[in-house]
Amino acid sequence: MKTDFTVEYIDELLRGYLPHSRDKVLQAIEYSLFSGGKRFRPMLLLRTAKAVGKHVSEGAKTLAAALEMVHTYSLIHDDLPCMDNDDIRRGKRSCHMQFGEASAVLAGDALLNLAFETALKGPISNKNYKNACVFLFKMSGIEGLVHGQSLDLFAEMKNVDDATELAVAKTGTLIRAALVCGAMVGGASDEEIALFDEIACKLGVCYQIIDDILDSQKCEKSFLDVYTTEDLLDHVRLLNDEIKATCDKLPYDLEYIKQFCDQNAARKK
Amino acid sequence: MKTDFTVEYIDELLRGYLPHSRDKVLQAIEYSLFSGGKRFRPMLLLRTAKAVGKHVSEGAKTLAAALEMVHTYSLIHDDLPCMDNDDIRRGKRSCHMQFGEASAVLAGDALLNLAFETALKGPISNKNYKNACVFLFKMSGIEGLVHGQSLDLFAEMKNVDDATELAVAKTGTLIRAALVCGAMVGGASDEEIALFDEIACKLGVCYQIIDDILDSQKCEKSFLDVYTTEDLLDHVRLLNDEIKATCDKLPYDLEYIKQFCDQNAARKK
Repeated sequence: MKTDFTVEYIDELLRGYLPHSRDKVLQAIEYSLFSGGKRFRPMLLLRTAKAVGKHVSEGAKTLAAALEMVHTYSLIHDDLPCMDNDDIRRGKRSCHMQFGEASAVLAGDALLNLAFETALKGPISNKNYKNACVFLFKMSGIEGLVHGQSLDLFAEMKNVDDATELAVAKTGTLIRAALVCGAMVGGASDEEIALFDEIACKLGVCYQIIDDILDSQKCEKSFLDVYTTEDLLDHVRLLNDEIKATCDKLPYDLEYIKQFCDQNAARKK
Repeated sequence: MKTDFTVEYIDELLRGYLPHSRDKVLQAIEYSLFSGGKRFRPMLLLRTAKAVGKHVSEGAKTLAAALEMVHTYSLIHDDLPCMDNDDIRRGKRSCHMQFGEASAVLAGDALLNLAFETALKGPISNKNYKNACVFLFKMSGIEGLVHGQSLDLFAEMKNVDDATELAVAKTGTLIRAALVCGAMVGGASDEEIALFDEIACKLGVCYQIIDDILDSQKCEKSFLDVYTTEDLLDHVRLLNDEIKATCDKLPYDLEYIKQFCDQNAARKK
């Protein structure tokens, strides 16, 4: 991995967009936003914007911050007792355990809203940037994250197609936002953007499979319901090969995506 | 009231922005969005845009729809058991009673997100429209609605200043969004916008006072904690006079605002 987009770099970026407020909800937002996230989504967005556009524009930074806010809001709401009921997030008490359920609902709402406010601070008159905003908020709404959480809560899972649909909707959406928004603000063509989207969907499936294997005790719905661990690891290897082949079709240095594939496949608890 | 901005007109407007989705969360969204709301916020926005700009632009319509989505999302989340725990909304079962808590959280999230997707469909390169979007989403976030709900849940209320702060934050914010966004897309000057904002804050207080008097059995925090009904009705009369005087300073036909004052003061259960 290149060292120019570190966790500290993303943290600094996020701090620049925090509101000035004495409301106690801001404490809950800061607690969840700076609780040891890996920041790989904004990193992927920034690296893609740089790979395609040769530099990192202000618009790419704004979208990277907005993307991580959307991700954090979704974790706070997904952890709620009425949703996945998770007491622990990243080894710490989840937001509602620390601040109470009402504050956690409000912190999630405020963070999603802050993602919009942040996006509006970018160069919204620029067509590529605007298209990237439209895509990001399509991925965070009922056609993206909300649908993923809804499938996770309510849908039946009978076969690998159902599991793949769930993984693309739940985990794939914000990886799609990272690569597609990065490619868009970098100035990629429509054909290239479609290839980045294809890569991102497959990355989402690979990431979810490894998550399911590592969390096999915990998940309610999981690839392990429909496949063995051995078969799933084969599937990840196959998808990783496909992702790398698609990377090679694109006229950019996408080494960071290939590394992401390998690092994901090698993840340990 | 003029008949050109009816409830049916707003309903039609909203339907045009609904997503195509088979997700069951969409049913919860539609249930809450079309459950007999008075639609006075989008009406005030459209009337203000027309009074100032002499016609109703596409941008005004887009913002009116987004504003009502924000309002509805906030009702769904405020009704949740961990918030105000309201089983009934507008005489019907509240969203979580009808669809379950998880669906209600997701429906609110999706509606807030849809408000932003809707706003992005307007003429975002137009400076006045963009400024109006920024103001709308400031009012829906931690400096607006979220702060209002947070005060309602957690703040102490000792005197009429606390009650007024709460009313402006809780009820005033989206009335401010209606008048200020309408004035902005209509092309009002900064000085005029400031007067519309002043009117809106006072309208918010008057509306909340009448709500508190009508719901005196129910409210946890209320103007009635710090004042008598008689004193409060005097206060409404005073504020209404101030609002009408401010209307007369503005070079527009603001009869609809004066009517709104009178209709609010005459509200019955």
